[in-house]
Amino acid sequence: MTIRVGFLGAGTVGGSLLRRLVEQNDAIATKSGVELDVHRVAVRDVGKARDVALGDGVLTADPRDVVTDPDVDLVVEVMGGLDPAGDLVLAALQSGKPVVTANKALIAARGRELIEAAEAAGVSLLFEAAVGGGIPIIRPLSQSLAGEQITRVMGIVNGTTNFILTKMIEDGLPYHGVLAEAQELGYAEADPTADVSGADAAAKAAILASLAFGIWVGFDRVHHEGIDQLEQIDFEFAANLGYRPKLLAIAEQGPGGIAVRVHPALVPSEHPLASVRGATNAVFVEGPAIGELLFTGPGAGGDPTATAVLGDVLHAARELLAKTPAKAPIRFAPGTIVEFDDVATKWYLRLEVADRPGVLARIASTFGDHRVSIKSVWQEGRGDRATLLLVTHDALERDLRAARAALDGLEVVGQVAAVIRVQSDEP
Amino acid sequence: MTIRVGFLGAGTVGGSLLRRLVEQNDAIATKSGVELDVHRVAVRDVGKARDVALGDGVLTADPRDVVTDPDVDLVVEVMGGLDPAGDLVLAALQSGKPVVTANKALIAARGRELIEAAEAAGVSLLFEAAVGGGIPIIRPLSQSLAGEQITRVMGIVNGTTNFILTKMIEDGLPYHGVLAEAQELGYAEADPTADVSGADAAAKAAILASLAFGIWVGFDRVHHEGIDQLEQIDFEFAANLGYRPKLLAIAEQGPGGIAVRVHPALVPSEHPLASVRGATNAVFVEGPAIGELLFTGPGAGGDPTATAVLGDVLHAARELLAKTPAKAPIRFAPGTIVEFDDVATKWYLRLEVADRPGVLARIASTFGDHRVSIKSVWQEGRGDRATLLLVTHDALERDLRAARAALDGLEVVGQVAAVIRVQSDEP
Repeated sequence: MTIRVGFLGAGTVGGSLLRRLVEQNDAIATKSGVELDVHRVAVRDVGKARDVALGDGVLTADPRDVVTDPDVDLVVEVMGGLDPAGDLVLAALQSGKPVVTANKALIAARGRELIEAAEAAGVSLLFEAAVGGGIPIIRPLSQSLAGEQITRVMGIVNGTTNFILTKMIEDGLPYHGVLAEAQELGYAEADPTADVSGADAAAKAAILASLAFGIWVGFDRVHHEGIDQLEQIDFEFAANLGYRPKLLAIAEQGPGGIAVRVHPALVPSEHPLASVRGATNAVFVEGPAIGELLFTGPGAGGDPTATAVLGDVLHAARELLAKTPAKAPIRFAPGTIVEFDDVATKWYLRLEVADRPGVLARIASTFGDHRVSIKSVWQEGRGDRATLLLVTHDALERDLRAARAALDGLEVVGQVAAVIRVQSDEP
Repeated sequence: MTIRVGFLGAGTVGGSLLRRLVEQNDAIATKSGVELDVHRVAVRDVGKARDVALGDGVLTADPRDVVTDPDVDLVVEVMGGLDPAGDLVLAALQSGKPVVTANKALIAARGRELIEAAEAAGVSLLFEAAVGGGIPIIRPLSQSLAGEQITRVMGIVNGTTNFILTKMIEDGLPYHGVLAEAQELGYAEADPTADVSGADAAAKAAILASLAFGIWVGFDRVHHEGIDQLEQIDFEFAANLGYRPKLLAIAEQGPGGIAVRVHPALVPSEHPLASVRGATNAVFVEGPAIGELLFTGPGAGGDPTATAVLGDVLHAARELLAKTPAKAPIRFAPGTIVEFDDVATKWYLRLEVADRPGVLARIASTFGDHRVSIKSVWQEGRGDRATLLLVTHDALERDLRAARAALDGLEVVGQVAAVIRVQSDEP
């Protein structure tokens, strides 16, 4: 029996998958035992030239045609965005069609509702492609590691920003120049906001955290900061201190609950994440029994992401063929999500200060007043103004912010020129 | 509803899993929605003291009790070995009980028969723990990557030998000394044959190849060589040439079919596999769409492996609760497995030769006579006898063997002292 697939969208990922379903259908059927047929494809512009041959009447400009077509057995949502994708996915699930999606923003925003709708309808909602592109991470987290009390998921989950940071570090170029180059090369979009602001990574962090801890973490619960405020000079200072800047997604279980956030952080040069270059993604999963697992691979791109979508399509198709009601990938239990203000981390700070006796004492006592303990301090340059580099021990977000404000008010401090978190498990 | 689990074996992995099922049952049930009950446990010595509290009548010395007990819903096979494990697993499947096993030797030897028996009975046979310990690799390969035309799977899949090689490289110690230390530390068994001979890795290679290519590759089709013939001196020479020795499992798709083997190989120092240390495992998966994926983590040990078994147990338990007939993880199609003699690779050779004019010409022409092309050659030391180090271009196993025999017969060659394959994608 053939499974008739409907597509919502045929952009980079959708186009790659369509090509494979048309050109490699025999090979896929031989290996998987599943015959797939591209039945309907909703696109924005029906008249646009495409590099894949589709039958007459397959293309439609109205995505509702795909969802309501009784001959569509399974829906692939690769149009992206929240609206109308969300309501289309919900309608497909409610009408008993399994849905495979690569839409991280949608899952992070409405995943709980959609997963529950899928379970109620007895069909699958699969989203391996939503995180890590071609890297299998959703299925390992929700199935292979279902019995592990995961303590932390941490990684590089946005290829665009890692490409930019790698170029900034290796070629010594400033942020805006590298961004322009990344846009020319197609590594960054014309509007790069979702990537460089950390929002894309935050959606992925929300999904990873929800699956790892079995507690629903919506996108709006993930604090995120991007890379657009980072300055080249701090990369050089950090390199001398043995660190490299990365945009990290971190979800961890602490005594007060789980904490999930995305922000730039300095990682020790010898840490495996420090050597993840270019658009590659890498995700650590940690737990008491498994220790550390590391998944590395292409975090974006049409072809790798289409592989992840196809794996899910074959999975859902097999369920349809076996007429097995699908189960939710995870059950969400109540749990506490720690307020970002209560998260503790180490910090790197660069201060412009007056170069005279007693300055360090004033600064140190200001940190101390706000419960921030200094681990190490260096002075760069001398003269009227000097640059002070500090690395702190673990300090709460709220305490660091208060300390920063107090420092800004000190007469001996010209400015707090840079504040970057440091991700290190050292004490 | 509770799923009653029967154990075949309660050694390192089984013991770790039993402890978790007894001590963390509530946490597991909350996260997974599945209640598990340890119903029967077959062990060799019922009277032995155990660090987990089991109810009266749970322990039995007869493993058939577990398989035939009508109250056992699901069987966990962690006794290892082919016999009687194979027939017990088959009997459990045939009586409609899903089976989760960590037994790589069994799956590599009888996997096809057991997978078919499971499918015929409509129950699952799951073996995530059979390869890579706690690293999720079976499910990603057979599900997430089901739509990828995988071209190569390559990695370090035996922790014991990687521990030994790491110690030999880093501490400059000879093989037998390190093996003794590994045995004392519990990293190697009293009889280390299965590990150091490459047989354990070959069973894992057979499983990985079968899932990656959808062609059944039995253990007996995997050529394997171990690390027990490697000499410290070649590690030093290799380091100077920019290589590190690793025991590699390699399964690749070539024009003539798939080739699967396990042997020591020199890998370039900058290759990610070169820096995999100690008992860690790492597996590369390559394909045209996904590029390269790398999975890294603890390849052995009771706790990580028990996590993998538990993930499978929860998966099978959910299927039981949903009363869904299970599907085979993969369909095997006919395919060609290349004879090992026809596999091509690069080679490192160390020759003891006479140090006089014309020797290199004789040696080079002998290689040439057997279609082996030399890429580079170094002479170490001078005097009556010199050491010649050679690295070849790709050459067939059969050709290299013939060349080696011819070299052994040359009057100017004292001995062919070492022959190690070189794994490098450079031309």
